[in-house]
Amino acid sequence: MENETKIRPAPKEKPAERKVRLRAALIEAAEAAIAREGLAGLRARDLAAEIGVALGQIYNLVGDLDELFLLVAGRTLRRLDKALAQAGAGAGSPEQSLVDVGLAYRAFASANLHLWRALFEHRMAPDKPLPEWALADQMELFAHILGPLAPLTPELDDDARRLLAHTLFSAVHGVVFLGLEEKFVGVPPGLIDRQIESLVRLTLAGLARGGAPGAR
Amino acid sequence: MENETKIRPAPKEKPAERKVRLRAALIEAAEAAIAREGLAGLRARDLAAEIGVALGQIYNLVGDLDELFLLVAGRTLRRLDKALAQAGAGAGSPEQSLVDVGLAYRAFASANLHLWRALFEHRMAPDKPLPEWALADQMELFAHILGPLAPLTPELDDDARRLLAHTLFSAVHGVVFLGLEEKFVGVPPGLIDRQIESLVRLTLAGLARGGAPGAR
Repeated sequence: MENETKIRPAPKEKPAERKVRLRAALIEAAEAAIAREGLAGLRARDLAAEIGVALGQIYNLVGDLDELFLLVAGRTLRRLDKALAQAGAGAGSPEQSLVDVGLAYRAFASANLHLWRALFEHRMAPDKPLPEWALADQMELFAHILGPLAPLTPELDDDARRLLAHTLFSAVHGVVFLGLEEKFVGVPPGLIDRQIESLVRLTLAGLARGGAPGAR
Repeated sequence: MENETKIRPAPKEKPAERKVRLRAALIEAAEAAIAREGLAGLRARDLAAEIGVALGQIYNLVGDLDELFLLVAGRTLRRLDKALAQAGAGAGSPEQSLVDVGLAYRAFASANLHLWRALFEHRMAPDKPLPEWALADQMELFAHILGPLAPLTPELDDDARRLLAHTLFSAVHGVVFLGLEEKFVGVPPGLIDRQIESLVRLTLAGLARGGAPGAR
């Protein structure tokens, strides 16, 4: 009954307003379902029932389940972006900033396990490319690494620094991903954080010592 | 028709022999299905049809689809183990050995994309722990990193070196995983290999410079 109250159109709601409201409700329901059950929780029939529309109506609100997932993924990426920005800003040095961004990545992944995993498990249908806006969301994550990396690698050109930022991001991702994977030799969160810190500090020490890769 | 010839019992086959033969055929069919389509290809009905048994008979051959997947995963892990062992043995120095093991990991992942991804995407049913033998298969992978790491980190105790090996393995895994992910800012294979080489060399240079983590 409570649900019904929430989803029943307000008396003077116009069709366009109703569509905006239902679309937002659909995205929230999809986000909650993935957070609870992972990607397998994204079932059109259940989501339609939850927001109180017929199954076919879902496809008036979003193109398909891939698009719905990408909308949820966009929200997850923007929250992640915010968490990394906050972590990076608080540090006293570029080195510490890179460590803190790595630790914030682990904390976000732990706190949003299914939503975070879904970012990497979801596959588009084979013939459908990822939309431009979804790619742009991803690129912003690297900014939190590129920023602190710049003063540490003045000898690198932009392309080489960007590749190094991608390498560092991916390496920390791997430590978090396998560490949080209960199945594949998981690691307690405290140890994962120690791994992240060693990895970042060793890489930076290596940079300081031998010059950066690509400068070779 | 060809299929039928292959799967029809030989005239004097005993029940126990038949079971061994069908179980092997089931595992091979499951492996081929995952290689072709990923985890979504693991469908009991199709596999039963392919090896020519009734659906229910599948569960006389393996406990359930989780067990069937783990049997396939075990084969994948053993082939990966062999590829890493060969790569590590050919190098002239421990440093080069670690680089070569990383590059062999990327080559294996590229050549066995769906089977390799399935190792990390598959989830056991929530109440079922991973069997001991499946964990043992995983631990052997780290040996290819622990070996060359030993002469480079004489000051580390076994636990610290094991953690470092896990960190390095995970970091290279992350570079390969995101690099081969078409969706999440993928990278061409040649560049992935450069990323792996920089990452390993920077980490080792950092170790040589500052002493190892955990020794702090």
